[in-house]
Amino acid sequence: MSLSVYLSGEIHTDWRDVIEKGARAAGLDVDFSAPVTDHDASDDCGVAILGAEETGFWKDHKGAKLNAIRTRTLIEQADVVVVRFGEKYKQWNAAFDAGYAAALGTPLVVLHAPEHTHALKEVDGAALAVAETPEQVVDILCYVLTGKLPG
Amino acid sequence: MSLSVYLSGEIHTDWRDVIEKGARAAGLDVDFSAPVTDHDASDDCGVAILGAEETGFWKDHKGAKLNAIRTRTLIEQADVVVVRFGEKYKQWNAAFDAGYAAALGTPLVVLHAPEHTHALKEVDGAALAVAETPEQVVDILCYVLTGKLPG
Amino acid sequence: MSLSVYLSGEIHTDWRDVIEKGARAAGLDVDFSAPVTDHDASDDCGVAILGAEETGFWKDHKGAKLNAIRTRTLIEQADVVVVRFGEKYKQWNAAFDAGYAAALGTPLVVLHAPEHTHALKEVDGAALAVAETPEQVVDILCYVLTGKLPG
Amino acid sequence: MSLSVYLSGEIHTDWRDVIEKGARAAGLDVDFSAPVTDHDASDDCGVAILGAEETGFWKDHKGAKLNAIRTRTLIEQADVVVVRFGEKYKQWNAAFDAGYAAALGTPLVVLHAPEHTHALKEVDGAALAVAETPEQVVDILCYVLTGKLPG
Amino acid sequence: MSLSVYLSGEIHTDWRDVIEKGARAAGLDVDFSAPVTDHDASDDCGVAILGAEETGFWKDHKGAKLNAIRTRTLIEQADVVVVRFGEKYKQWNAAFDAGYAAALGTPLVVLHAPEHTHALKEVDGAALAVAETPEQVVDILCYVLTGKLPG
Amino acid sequence: MSLSVYLSGEIHTDWRDVIEKGARAAGLDVDFSAPVTDHDASDDCGVAILGAEETGFWKDHKGAKLNAIRTRTLIEQADVVVVRFGEKYKQWNAAFDAGYAAALGTPLVVLHAPEHTHALKEVDGAALAVAETPEQVVDILCYVLTGKLPG
Amino acid sequence: MSLSVYLSGEIHTDWRDVIEKGARAAGLDVDFSAPVTDHDASDDCGVAILGAEETGFWKDHKGAKLNAIRTRTLIEQADVVVVRFGEKYKQWNAAFDAGYAAALGTPLVVLHAPEHTHALKEVDGAALAVAETPEQVVDILCYVLTGKLPG
Amino acid sequence: MSLSVYLSGEIHTDWRDVIEKGARAAGLDVDFSAPVTDHDASDDCGVAILGAEETGFWKDHKGAKLNAIRTRTLIEQADVVVVRFGEKYKQWNAAFDAGYAAALGTPLVVLHAPEHTHALKEVDGAALAVAETPEQVVDILCYVLTGKLPG
Repeated sequence: MSLSVYLSGEIHTDWRDVIEKGARAAGLDVDFSAPVTDHDASDDCGVAILGAEETGFWKDHKGAKLNAIRTRTLIEQADVVVVRFGEKYKQWNAAFDAGYAAALGTPLVVLHAPEHTHALKEVDGAALAVAETPEQVVDILCYVLTGKLPG
Repeated sequence: MSLSVYLSGEIHTDWRDVIEKGARAAGLDVDFSAPVTDHDASDDCGVAILGAEETGFWKDHKGAKLNAIRTRTLIEQADVVVVRFGEKYKQWNAAFDAGYAAALGTPLVVLHAPEHTHALKEVDGAALAVAETPEQVVDILCYVLTGKLPG
Repeated sequence: MSLSVYLSGEIHTDWRDVIEKGARAAGLDVDFSAPVTDHDASDDCGVAILGAEETGFWKDHKGAKLNAIRTRTLIEQADVVVVRFGEKYKQWNAAFDAGYAAALGTPLVVLHAPEHTHALKEVDGAALAVAETPEQVVDILCYVLTGKLPG
Repeated sequence: MSLSVYLSGEIHTDWRDVIEKGARAAGLDVDFSAPVTDHDASDDCGVAILGAEETGFWKDHKGAKLNAIRTRTLIEQADVVVVRFGEKYKQWNAAFDAGYAAALGTPLVVLHAPEHTHALKEVDGAALAVAETPEQVVDILCYVLTGKLPG
Repeated sequence: MSLSVYLSGEIHTDWRDVIEKGARAAGLDVDFSAPVTDHDASDDCGVAILGAEETGFWKDHKGAKLNAIRTRTLIEQADVVVVRFGEKYKQWNAAFDAGYAAALGTPLVVLHAPEHTHALKEVDGAALAVAETPEQVVDILCYVLTGKLPG
Repeated sequence: MSLSVYLSGEIHTDWRDVIEKGARAAGLDVDFSAPVTDHDASDDCGVAILGAEETGFWKDHKGAKLNAIRTRTLIEQADVVVVRFGEKYKQWNAAFDAGYAAALGTPLVVLHAPEHTHALKEVDGAALAVAETPEQVVDILCYVLTGKLPG
Repeated sequence: MSLSVYLSGEIHTDWRDVIEKGARAAGLDVDFSAPVTDHDASDDCGVAILGAEETGFWKDHKGAKLNAIRTRTLIEQADVVVVRFGEKYKQWNAAFDAGYAAALGTPLVVLHAPEHTHALKEVDGAALAVAETPEQVVDILCYVLTGKLPG
Repeated sequence: MSLSVYLSGEIHTDWRDVIEKGARAAGLDVDFSAPVTDHDASDDCGVAILGAEETGFWKDHKGAKLNAIRTRTLIEQADVVVVRFGEKYKQWNAAFDAGYAAALGTPLVVLHAPEHTHALKEVDGAALAVAETPEQVVDILCYVLTGKLPG
């Protein structure tokens, strides 16, 4: 058994690395994917490729749509979508991805600190697992793929 | 032509009333729906009906799932989903609903103040219209249904 | 808002009546449906209509398929599927219906006594609510439709 | 021609081994998959990975959802789903999987002793084959893949 | 409960009338539909409306496509598809409709004399009921809608 | 039998009126719909409702998306889509609608003068009927609904 | 570009061989599949594997369902379905497969002698090509894959 | 990450070559596909393979359907559809493909000169990117696959 796992959400901490290294260390057959995690490239891609805009709205619009070519393709191909909510920013795109995955019926794992439990209750309610640490996500993937529990 | 319109998101201002009254004043054939907008009922429904919980997590979980019976049914029945982002709270459920509607291919209208443009760029990028006022949403519905422009 | 609710499972107690009367008393706009609940008719329908069989297997087969014309049509039309597990029999058809509804993405409510919690954990895990009494199901429907909590 | 076959249900006898060995002996191009068949791991996975629970209900709930990440992914990828009903336990998860596969339109093979014929009539009615022994399932797979009959 | 029932196949005997009268006599809430049963109109419609053709192939082609506007719309709207195979002609369109309904997952009832059992085995194998007389089809509809057995 | 028919394409001749009057004269149960056919409103709707734009590209973009709320909703609800290609303009939106309907599997009727046959061969190839006059479209609808041929 | 092509229908002439050899000679990247073409095995498979039946009906029923495991899997995986109608038998299973493929939206090629044109008009009307010889089917596959015309 | 990209539309300039060479030079993992771009073969394929026709209409019809076997298969397999509108011809097939991709929910990139902005506003409105040069399409693919911006 192998899994395609899309890692959505926060791009300012190393949680993706922790999960990918943990999965590799455990010898799991997982194919990870993610949005573009270079914040500047992600913000500027629309105008850098398709030409400058006068307003922030259309600059953002062009960029968001280019990013959507990548993110929707990967979410639709994923067997599991993991969405991480961090400490900063509004992170509406993370919640948007969670809703997108939920509507597709794709298994959803949410990763966030306990203080966000109430604000994320709808998102958690649609998830098959709610983790607090990236290590737990590795344990989940390990269990799903091999039936082995940690420790 | 008639439309079923689901009004998702912020529950602390009267934006739904403004839209519903405007649509009625314009004689539009629209069937509006919404989540439960009584904040306390929405938070307590799970434990009030299905029994108390020791932890906030499971209280929220039970409640979120009961609310999902309503919200998913209505979103899946809607011809148009309008999602309002207000000034307070994380509003991840609003972004979740937007992602859900986008994955279903349902036309999406987003309603928010200009200062959230950058944070909402992925949500706006998936929308067929981005409005700043509820009156604009009425104008959109009026145009979609009748072909008439405002003024 | 109105709901089509399919009441699947146990046919030997009056739980359907309790729910239907409760919903009517609360003035809810619900259209209930159910499998054929006359046990003998349900068992005999195949051979009674399409001719006798020598073996129990084919008698059951013919009957099960006739019943499926009704049950699949109603499950596919339902907004909510409620599945009741009682005290007697194997009730594999109830679990089958729950799996069918889950795969369709239809909101699922499960109704059973606490002693079946462990045996029903996969079914409960796919549900948006797990109730112990038919009165709780009425309360759920009331909340979903009106936003009102009991009491 | 190759087939992905998901083997659902009973985890206390060696029926999966018999089928897998038989298919290998016959040189069939089949990719078998299954739920986690370690009963303890399957029961404990939720709390072992995501933290202890006070009540059996939530322990089971967490575990069932983790298992669902595996089982739904595999059922949705399967070309054929074989569901085995054994002699012990309620086995509602087996019937749930059968309903899930039926709703997806995936060919279903049911494997059970003749004494369960009446109780399983709805499940059998949705199946493309009802076998009594794992050897018959091997013969089915052999015929489907090669057109060769046994003996 | 009501049903939309599409009556496909043979157009040279009165089987549709028998079923419709029987359903009416039993007070069933069924909405019947059918292909155009005027043989000449059905054959000529393409050239009569869209202009003459030199060859039989294109005359038939134009007509078949006009008829498909009706038949596909009705089959896709039907809750149940009944397909009648009579004594004359190749009736490939009847078998085509049965395959179409099967792929949609619509419950299928087949109606034919016993001597066609072997030739129709694939079609019967996809059906939820195989009847020999139109009266049996009425009994099926009556049972599905009311739970009442004949006699 | 009734039909929902979407009339896409050319907005500068009276072809929609001819079809609607013809259908009414024939007493057909058809519910017609169409895009906004006021050319100026259709072009200006985006900026009139959601605010002015500096460039033609974004003015058009906003307008096209508002129009899509209407057109996609109606195309997805239609039983039959009729697409008219006239003598003027590029009419890429008409061909876009035809492709959209084809991908949905909705029966497609194309209406154009013979001189466009070669340029429209892919569109015609996806259609169930190719008409040259609106009167033929009325005859098609009449035949589909009643089985009656003209004259 | 590669294609999966399912060859449905007649099993008493060598048309599949002609197509497969022609495709191989042309160096085409095609993966052909077919039903079990051993007539006796196809008829007997149900009773040979799952036990004898007293009546022809249930013998046929069991066999048809086993064959459906193979045929539906292959039709659903195919990029193109070719259906051959020969000179003998009713061949309702061929027309059933054509209807099944049509409902899935899979490109359909029909292969038959000209004298069946009228009887097959509905099937031909749903096809993207109607050929008279297996060599034409090879030419079609060659053109689709390479853009090269014969000769 | 890899992408399947279908290049639809204009066949009289070298835009496909520019994109394919650019992607290769950038080391991108893209699998490009396209319609048959030999204009004469594309026009003649129907009659060359399946026999001559008296009228242009049926010649075109046969050819368009053969081409559809290729184009629909490739569009349905594509992760991204790029549609190029050139300077000549009506190019209704290009707009048809864009509508087809839009209805499938496949990310759409449109490539055209600025003077067609108004005429293509509906098509552009459904796209995730609107480019003016093939080099921009290469930059888009590069960014989507690698997160790297040009220059």
